[in-house]
Amino acid sequence: MARAWHLRNRPDGTPTAADFELKDLELPPVSEGTVRVRNRWLSVDPYMRGRMNDTRSYVPSFQLGEPMEGAAIGEVVESKADGLATGDLVQHMAGWRDEAVVPARAVNKLPSLGVEPQKFLGVLGVPGATAWFGLLEVAAAKSTDIVFVSAAAGSVGSAVVQIARARGMTVIGSAGGADKCDYVRSLGADRVLDYKGGPILKSLAAAAPDGIDVYFDNVGGDHLDAALAVARNHARFAICGMIGGYNRNEPASFRFIMRVIAARIRVQGFLITDYLGRLGEFYAEMAPLVVSGAVASRETVYDGLEATPDAFLGLFEGANIGKMLVRL
Amino acid sequence: MARAWHLRNRPDGTPTAADFELKDLELPPVSEGTVRVRNRWLSVDPYMRGRMNDTRSYVPSFQLGEPMEGAAIGEVVESKADGLATGDLVQHMAGWRDEAVVPARAVNKLPSLGVEPQKFLGVLGVPGATAWFGLLEVAAAKSTDIVFVSAAAGSVGSAVVQIARARGMTVIGSAGGADKCDYVRSLGADRVLDYKGGPILKSLAAAAPDGIDVYFDNVGGDHLDAALAVARNHARFAICGMIGGYNRNEPASFRFIMRVIAARIRVQGFLITDYLGRLGEFYAEMAPLVVSGAVASRETVYDGLEATPDAFLGLFEGANIGKMLVRL
Repeated sequence: MARAWHLRNRPDGTPTAADFELKDLELPPVSEGTVRVRNRWLSVDPYMRGRMNDTRSYVPSFQLGEPMEGAAIGEVVESKADGLATGDLVQHMAGWRDEAVVPARAVNKLPSLGVEPQKFLGVLGVPGATAWFGLLEVAAAKSTDIVFVSAAAGSVGSAVVQIARARGMTVIGSAGGADKCDYVRSLGADRVLDYKGGPILKSLAAAAPDGIDVYFDNVGGDHLDAALAVARNHARFAICGMIGGYNRNEPASFRFIMRVIAARIRVQGFLITDYLGRLGEFYAEMAPLVVSGAVASRETVYDGLEATPDAFLGLFEGANIGKMLVRL
Repeated sequence: MARAWHLRNRPDGTPTAADFELKDLELPPVSEGTVRVRNRWLSVDPYMRGRMNDTRSYVPSFQLGEPMEGAAIGEVVESKADGLATGDLVQHMAGWRDEAVVPARAVNKLPSLGVEPQKFLGVLGVPGATAWFGLLEVAAAKSTDIVFVSAAAGSVGSAVVQIARARGMTVIGSAGGADKCDYVRSLGADRVLDYKGGPILKSLAAAAPDGIDVYFDNVGGDHLDAALAVARNHARFAICGMIGGYNRNEPASFRFIMRVIAARIRVQGFLITDYLGRLGEFYAEMAPLVVSGAVASRETVYDGLEATPDAFLGLFEGANIGKMLVRL
């Protein structure tokens, strides 16, 4: 019998373990055009918090009492689909469970790029592609730019730091705590700010006396306000996430919002889903950087299906360095 | 003896009449390459509030005890400059005074477009060009768009409403009070919101049940937050001004800032100074609309140099419909 995490309650504010329930899940038989997949790696991601609410968003809400979903890497153990054979490693969205029967069209066979499979949930997956397109397309960052990235020890942020360095940009990264800051430094960031060490505005202003050209935002709030404060003329902000606000209902407050006018700042929100048609382009450029080690990646791994909610909740406590994963 | 308004105090918050002083001003003789101009029309504009502060901005601060400046239309009364003759009507930046000696390179002879000279301070001047380039370039508005513009009875906003209508867009305008709303309606706006009648979010949501594609922001604050709340996917915001915040030091608060991500909103600040090299293009397109009456314009006129501070202070009390001017 397969098992899957189900949504038990819609959290008000920060989710807790009691919002999730692990239950048996009867799988349908493998019919024509479907495969049965045994999951090896599950992804937990901040955006899933939004799916726990019952509100209109860019992805459908999780339903109460129903299994949760998310990116996963698994091995095909039974196939009635052309082009997919037993033993193939595939990526799909039936995560938060150990086994699933999924239509072949909802499954992507991992390309042979010479990297470990779980990298397709991280640096060569959605987080890596988010960093790539966000930095290079949305923010249109170029080699002479000074780039500020928040949550720089996270899965997206750590990729931003390294892509920016590989392209010759100057990089300032923020992270919470000494360990994460060391990690960001090890990735090649020119300057690293510990946001737990004091107001981010003060440390950013000191680290960027000439201002910043690009801000890659993963956290919103004070970080975004500080970036507004120090932005140079024609700065571009790629707004990828605002994890600081996901569990809060209070309004965000900005002292420097008016600088968008004088400095002609462009603030552009984006979703990686708009770029998924261009993954081939991303693989072609990013895989060599990963294989050569120019872009390293680190994972924080929780073991066992039972640990999935803990891994997810850990995202909001800063428990991860690099990509947060569950290994089955 | 010429007379000019001088900055007496730097205001803390809302400026008052006591911050200005009208004093005699000795003019230099008209030397080679300069002209003496007798001003006919003075412009007062919200951006001048920023120049009263002693802070870095996109235009230099006014200096304490020194004459103030601003756009003006005047008549050349003495010339030692090629191409400028007595009787020519010119635009220049030596406003807030009755007479000035200015270098010929700082003077623009008004083009012959068949309109009254004061229009070059309004619908065919900086406010009109701000509306034009902000709407069509910065926000990239197209005929099928639903456009929301705040301060729609002001000099910039009223031009935005009419340019948008002339291009076939659907236009929602906000203004404060019944008179201004009537005026905005008379300009052809499809829907008009009186922000003094209740929360702008509520009235905007009702007026735009399908959301908005473009927001032309003149006021910031609650208007901007409401626009974030109802923006459709890939909406573009042109941030032109935030008059609501110019006299305040408190941070602005946003409940809907996170929608920039899900809706992929682009928020772009701009300054008209970046577009002044393209005024020819603007005249070519806008002058026919003004001459034909497709773009009407209204002025609120104060008479006499003495009234200049009152006209300026009136901007922050919503005393103007259309362009605020001083006639000498």
